[in-house]
Amino acid sequence: MTLFSSLTPLYIAIICVLIGVIFKKTNGEKEKRETKSKPSSRPWVDEDLKDGTDHPLEEEEADEEWQGLEENVAHVPFIGERYSEAEMIKRSQSFYELLNKRRSVRFLSDEPVPREVIDNVIRTAGTSPSGAHTEPWTFVVVQDPSLKHKIREIVEEEEEINYKKRMGDRWVNDLKRLRTNWIKEYLDTAPYLILIFKQVYGRLPNGKKKTHYYNEISVSIACGILLAALQNAGLYTVTSTPLNCGPQLRVLLQRPANEKLLLLLPVGYPKKDATVPALTRKPLEDIMVVM
Amino acid sequence: MTLFSSLTPLYIAIICVLIGVIFKKTNGEKEKRETKSKPSSRPWVDEDLKDGTDHPLEEEEADEEWQGLEENVAHVPFIGERYSEAEMIKRSQSFYELLNKRRSVRFLSDEPVPREVIDNVIRTAGTSPSGAHTEPWTFVVVQDPSLKHKIREIVEEEEEINYKKRMGDRWVNDLKRLRTNWIKEYLDTAPYLILIFKQVYGRLPNGKKKTHYYNEISVSIACGILLAALQNAGLYTVTSTPLNCGPQLRVLLQRPANEKLLLLLPVGYPKKDATVPALTRKPLEDIMVVM
Repeated sequence: MTLFSSLTPLYIAIICVLIGVIFKKTNGEKEKRETKSKPSSRPWVDEDLKDGTDHPLEEEEADEEWQGLEENVAHVPFIGERYSEAEMIKRSQSFYELLNKRRSVRFLSDEPVPREVIDNVIRTAGTSPSGAHTEPWTFVVVQDPSLKHKIREIVEEEEEINYKKRMGDRWVNDLKRLRTNWIKEYLDTAPYLILIFKQVYGRLPNGKKKTHYYNEISVSIACGILLAALQNAGLYTVTSTPLNCGPQLRVLLQRPANEKLLLLLPVGYPKKDATVPALTRKPLEDIMVVM
Repeated sequence: MTLFSSLTPLYIAIICVLIGVIFKKTNGEKEKRETKSKPSSRPWVDEDLKDGTDHPLEEEEADEEWQGLEENVAHVPFIGERYSEAEMIKRSQSFYELLNKRRSVRFLSDEPVPREVIDNVIRTAGTSPSGAHTEPWTFVVVQDPSLKHKIREIVEEEEEINYKKRMGDRWVNDLKRLRTNWIKEYLDTAPYLILIFKQVYGRLPNGKKKTHYYNEISVSIACGILLAALQNAGLYTVTSTPLNCGPQLRVLLQRPANEKLLLLLPVGYPKKDATVPALTRKPLEDIMVVM
């Protein structure tokens, strides 16, 4: 209540110095850690993987709730949609059935898709909540065939390195089966590639960096809403996180340094002969606990 | 296909030993890093913030695509839903309009909500894609009033500490306005609290840890789908990340050590006098770039 009321300016000065020392020490430790975690890999591998989530001390200062904390923002009355209980049950059941038909599809045809639908699904993703309402997302929609092909080259080159490095002699023995893992034809055939960037920081009016807390969680949530919107529209995709390609793709797509690639979604219709792995989903009792 | 067929048991034994040595070394490095990243703060703060995203070396080995990489899984033909272009435009527009009405609501009434709807929205979230189809999520639905109240006590206590620490003398000057930031009545009033845990690792049949790559992104995507399902059913929530409370809440809810709290969503109907901040969303041209 009266936290600082009994403190003299001298005490405040001492506290400030102490905070400064602690902060400097902490930063030093953080740098040490970052150095530690950089072993032999190529420079842009580390660049790729650095983001706000690496800085727990900064996170500690973050807002807990995602909206409603803005100061100087007026509050207005809110009345939500209200359905009868029977309608709610029916609507929730239908929506489950719709989304349960979603599968990640790696075989996408080159049939054109109306741009208006792409605009609408990205508008929908943009309704997602975000930490302190920062809306820290950029959706880059690539439709130009030569640009799609450049993306494919970058992704496949990296993937090949990843697979070879990972697989060692297993790879040599089993080239043919694994080959599909880094050959990504859909990057050419899909009418659209949506590259989703998280804005890890913004700029304050004075030009200083403003950390976007929870930017990765926020952008991932927006991506979940995007996946729902795609499924609702009859479009298919495969969720991919192009490993180590982020910086190259960021430069190719002329995105600023505060944006990091989070996900790449090729979007289109399934090919006539598309297949999916025969996977099942966990039943409700394995994912939900009621107390 | 014939992966190990040409290997004699001796070679297999040698490979196993080598894998063991590499694995042990990696674990050792990880432990060193984890020790480094624990500075002066309370023990469960660090515990709370540790997750798979802190380990770039492990991430580097991760699968890029989220499905279709499973070995020994049969592939089956896939035919998706197909709508006319006019239908696609209409469906995508309606879905945008539905989700654009979503707001984060902090003022939730205590009116009961049918359990069946909660089951359906969580089933829907469970259709989300996940890294290597690990489905690394647990949705804990709390309806017991005394348990909700215990959660409220834990969250408010931590929040009060956070706010006092952060705000300094601004806090003293402006107590009344900020007070709403750590008083969370909705944790008592909402008929359900959904606490979403990410499973940062699983167990292999031999009992060893199996890292769940991209678990945070996967669970956040599932949460995006959950938010869409709630909005579709006429239910409201506020996305919150209860800072530093994860370990206490995990113990309270008897979740195992491999689960970390990611988000807490109170779910219900808006109160009659609910308000929301008068925020707007970025227009499409500010979040989408077409190339």
